[in-house]
Amino acid sequence: MTAACASLTADCINPIVTSTVTVFRTMAGCELHHGKPFLVGDKKGAHDISGVIGLSGKALGTVVLSLSEPVALRVTEAMLSELPAKIDSDVVDTVGELTNMIGGSAKAQLEHLQMSLSLPNVIVGHDHQIAFPGDVTPIGVPFDCPWGAVCVQFGLSDTGT
Amino acid sequence: MTAACASLTADCINPIVTSTVTVFRTMAGCELHHGKPFLVGDKKGAHDISGVIGLSGKALGTVVLSLSEPVALRVTEAMLSELPAKIDSDVVDTVGELTNMIGGSAKAQLEHLQMSLSLPNVIVGHDHQIAFPGDVTPIGVPFDCPWGAVCVQFGLSDTGT
Repeated sequence: MTAACASLTADCINPIVTSTVTVFRTMAGCELHHGKPFLVGDKKGAHDISGVIGLSGKALGTVVLSLSEPVALRVTEAMLSELPAKIDSDVVDTVGELTNMIGGSAKAQLEHLQMSLSLPNVIVGHDHQIAFPGDVTPIGVPFDCPWGAVCVQFGLSDTGT
Repeated sequence: MTAACASLTADCINPIVTSTVTVFRTMAGCELHHGKPFLVGDKKGAHDISGVIGLSGKALGTVVLSLSEPVALRVTEAMLSELPAKIDSDVVDTVGELTNMIGGSAKAQLEHLQMSLSLPNVIVGHDHQIAFPGDVTPIGVPFDCPWGAVCVQFGLSDTGT
């Protein structure tokens, strides 16, 4: 099953990358440039604040959007027209909303998996790590932009209904 | 919508408490005693390691199971017959599995909402906080057991399909 999951996850790289780039461009006028995808087990992808959203349907999965603090603050400024001094409830809501949009856009591009989204949750903490179940091979995609580092991690399992 | 969500979330307190107590008793021989439910906005419920699982269907939601490190280690010992020295991949998998079981049991008790589970993710980090979307009123239920503190947080939104 692990090989099948890894393949399923790999198939989703392009839809997730496209969704992330489009959402940042549209919502925050921010151009992201992606780096080389990596296996999350080898390298951690979490920055200072991460949005997590679950997907369920013919596959089960999670999309994690992780931002360094400067990116989170500047994206919030771009969306709300005020630069927060630190990570506050506006920043948390902004990261949750971006995560929801990226999950929604990826879901639409992966229509054949008939997945629905759960609620986005946002994790704050400078040293947090986000682990996936042992039978899933999550992939991370690093991005950079003028404001700093962004990473999207996602993993899918073919054990859905 | 916030009032409706709060009511929906409140309706789930008993199924979630029952599920948590049953899963800990069955899987780890651990008797949990619950304290007074609280609004997560007023007080944070995250301990050292947290499992997060999404639910989607006629409602959207998240269940978060958060354990202090001593509880996470002892529960892992009870399930795997070896006491880990620190939070390692066995502990992460155990917390993910417990979260999945609690979500699954709660889902079964909330059959009318026809929800499906996403994958459990596990957050590690001593100071992590887990935020819910602004239009959800999450509720936390503290538990204690001989090994230390446990908390379950959950929030539901009635915006599902």
